[in-house]
Formats: sequence, structure tokens, C-alpha cells
Amino acid sequence: MGTFQEATALTAMPARGAGVYGAELDPQWSVGTRLHGGYLLAVLGRAACLSSGGAGHPHVTAVSASFVEPPEPGAAEVRVETLRVGRSLAQVRATLAQRDRPLVEALITLGALDDTGPWWSAAEPVEIPPREECFPAPANPPGAGFPVPLMDVVEQHIHPEHLAFAFGAPARRGLIATWQRLADGSDWDPLSLLVALDPVPPASYDLGLPGWVPTVQLSAYVRRLPAPGPVRVRLQATDVGGDRMDETAQIWDHKGRLVAQATQLAAVRIPA
Amino acid sequence: MGTFQEATALTAMPARGAGVYGAELDPQWSVGTRLHGGYLLAVLGRAACLSSGGAGHPHVTAVSASFVEPPEPGAAEVRVETLRVGRSLAQVRATLAQRDRPLVEALITLGALDDTGPWWSAAEPVEIPPREECFPAPANPPGAGFPVPLMDVVEQHIHPEHLAFAFGAPARRGLIATWQRLADGSDWDPLSLLVALDPVPPASYDLGLPGWVPTVQLSAYVRRLPAPGPVRVRLQATDVGGDRMDETAQIWDHKGRLVAQATQLAAVRIPA
Repeated sequence: MGTFQEATALTAMPARGAGVYGAELDPQWSVGTRLHGGYLLAVLGRAACLSSGGAGHPHVTAVSASFVEPPEPGAAEVRVETLRVGRSLAQVRATLAQRDRPLVEALITLGALDDTGPWWSAAEPVEIPPREECFPAPANPPGAGFPVPLMDVVEQHIHPEHLAFAFGAPARRGLIATWQRLADGSDWDPLSLLVALDPVPPASYDLGLPGWVPTVQLSAYVRRLPAPGPVRVRLQATDVGGDRMDETAQIWDHKGRLVAQATQLAAVRIPA
Repeated sequence: MGTFQEATALTAMPARGAGVYGAELDPQWSVGTRLHGGYLLAVLGRAACLSSGGAGHPHVTAVSASFVEPPEPGAAEVRVETLRVGRSLAQVRATLAQRDRPLVEALITLGALDDTGPWWSAAEPVEIPPREECFPAPANPPGAGFPVPLMDVVEQHIHPEHLAFAFGAPARRGLIATWQRLADGSDWDPLSLLVALDPVPPASYDLGLPGWVPTVQLSAYVRRLPAPGPVRVRLQATDVGGDRMDETAQIWDHKGRLVAQATQLAAVRIPA
């Protein structure tokens, strides 16, 4: 099993132009047969850092992406175009393509993060029992009908009260809290946090909607460098209707500081 | 004073290519000397609808944008490239440029909205007194140091308790609730809601940070067609630190249904 670093490694492709990188998309970072959205954002983010990060802007601080078509595992190309390099930030456009078809499009802002706590915050860490009292998410969830290979590389422990859906009695709060850490033993960083910002299972499971929930658009902000150790993740749906659901994800590090946050709009099948 | 429709009107520019439109950016839709971010998104959104909307996908349902450099009032060009046209949605990339410089970049998803209420919702409408008991936001706020011409085209009434900042005693909840309606008398639609999703003043005013707050990235979702009448808008900051603030905006229509939501990451100057 490869590390996060290996699964998101890139190779410069100067023959294809400046800012073009080759990736080898790893099927281990999948949910069912689909590559995980957060993993794809991490690949795009790494390309942005390589292309435009440089001295002043080493970290991804914001990513907004449209998921156009699902990429296949294997070779892919990431193309980064610089829009602006300023004093405190750099802005780029990044495209993940296979066979010259754009499959994931992203707008990325780079900057320099540190581990200073917030000047002001309204975000209390999500309430969740200690990790050892939570339920480890399996890579082969009973009754799910498909494997979640991602769970072998991202160790996730779910709040027991938010697991009621697995017993046919969803709490219907649209809320799932988890502990997450990387199975390769590495600490979270701004790129790998993009994986944790796109949690599995989706909040719709807690609403009694067990189906597939493909992301349409996702926007992530990384706010500060995380302290070493597992993170707490809160996933909350706000509104479900018209075959769409929005979800908000928030992540707190070991010191209880908000380190990353995201919203996504996803397609969901609502029973008639 | 032009209407919203006029201020966002576009002209096809076939000589510049398919999907290219000319806009005339109206300084009336400004905050200080800067064109308003939500107004610029509405211009981009209209171009996306003209280019790719067509029969099945008449409405903007999601927009994620990077604000690269502030456009000037006057002539601008919007270029739309189609990424994918599917059954339930179309995805495009749109760029607003002046003198061939990309100034605002957006990823836009189009679809078909209706006015059906949610299947499930966790979002209660923001608590705010009746509109006539709220404070009308002036186009020349005393002490602000700059005019807000936008307030002459978007009538905004602020929750009186959220106005304490204007008297030097900010409530420090990072919360500002408003009523909004278009001064031209037209009803809100998915494009004009993009204006209402980028409220003025920013939530930082309620934190005692009165300075300029330029948006870095903004992501908006339009969830359903709004009922006629003024809307209620809730703007809430989550975390301020590292010279960045995130804000979440939610909008409810006259019937109390969530019709649009957004998050933005903005630059903010924090006192040392």
C-alpha cells in the first residue's frame, strides 16, 4: 500500500509544456469504483504547489473544483496555469485530464500558512467521544454493496451515535462526526487535509438516503498548519432537495483549532 | 439608475469566438471604488446561461470564483468554455477579462431549478425583526470614508442589534442579518441572488475590524427559485486568523425556504 506522498506524486513533463505534470492515479484512494474527490484535489493541489508555490506561497489555502467526469485509475495529466502571483498569495487554474479530456477543473489559491491559532473563532470542535470509543470504518462495509478501498489508507473512526444508519435507524440530523488519520503514519498537511474534507460516508446516510452521492462542486479552505495527530471532522448537511444536497465539512486538529473547512454540492437521489 | 437586467446585459461577440460576450460594467454596482464581487459573478453567470443554458439548463446552480484583480467599470469581455453538457446539468469555465487580462475566473454549474421546498433542511430562517423595524443601509455610511453606490440599487435593511459596530460597540458575534430587495422593483432570480450572497458590510465589522475585506475565492449555490418579495440574508464569520476570514451567507425567501448559500475566503487586516 502506497503512502499519501506516493499516491499523489507528480512528474514534470517539460515536453508537454511548463506547468504540466504526470500523475499515476492510485485505485487504493477510491470509493467503490470511483477515485475519491478529495484525493483528486490533493493531486491538483500538489501540481499547483510545484508549479507556482515557490518561496512565498508553499501551501494550498483555497481550492474550488468542478467534477466534470470521473477519472480512471492510472496515468493522468495535470496542467497548471498561473493567473497571478502577488505578495501574500498566488492564484492558479489547474486541470486534471486523461486523453486530453478535462475531468476535474480547479481554481486554487496558494499562500503561506503557519500554526498560529485564530484571532477569533465561532467554531467549537465537534463533540465526539475519544477515538478508541468510536467505530472504525471498514473497507468492506456490510450491506454497502461496494468496497471502500480509501478506508485502508485513511483510518476513520465514526461517532457511535452517528452510525445508527447502519442499523436502519438513521438519526436524521444530517450529521456525521469522525476521527481521521492517515494509515501510512504521516501527519496531516495542507494537501492531505483535502482528502479528509471530503468524508465518507456522506451526510445523506444519516438522513436515510444510502445511495451514491457524486460531488458536483467542492470548495475547500485550509486555514492553518495542523498539529501532529488525528483530526476531528464534522460533516453536516444543510438542505436536501431538487436532487441536490450541500454538505459542510470542518476539521479540528489535536489542539482543537479549526485547520480546514469545505462545502460541496452533490447529486443525491431522493425517494419519490 | 439602470436595472439589474441592464447592468448585467451582454452582447454576443461572434468575431471573438463562440461563447464570447461583451459586458459594460456599471460603477453603480460598486463598494467604494471597487465593483461588487457578487455583481461580477452575476455577469459571469449570465454569460454561462447564454452560452450553455439552453433548454435543459436555464439556471446557475453553482459558481466558484477566484478574484484575481479588480476589474474597472466599463467594457469587459466574458469568455465561456463548455466542459460538459449532461442530462441534469451543464458545467462551464468562465473568465471575465479586460484588455485580455483574466480578472475573475469562475467554474459554473447550470441546471434547472424549481420552487419546490426542501425534502429535508437544517437551516431555519435567520431571526430578524420585520423589515420596517430594521435599519436601511445608506449609500454614504457616516464615518465609513467611502460611498457604497451598491446600496442605491440593492435596498438593504440591517438587523438593529447587528448595527452596534456603527456605534463603536461591535457585538463580536461575526453575524450580520439583513433584508434585501432590488431597488428596480424586480424580483430576485438565480442571477441576482449572487449579488445578495456577497453582503455589505462584511461580518468583520461586527468583530470590530472595520477595514476593507477583498474576496479571494467565493463559492455560491442557488438551491431553488425564490418566491417574490424581499429575502432574509444571514452572514456569519467562522474563523479569523492569518489575515484571512471565512464568511457563510444564507438566503431565505418570503416563504422561509433556503434559496441560496455561499462561502467566501477574504483577506482581512488583523490589528497587531
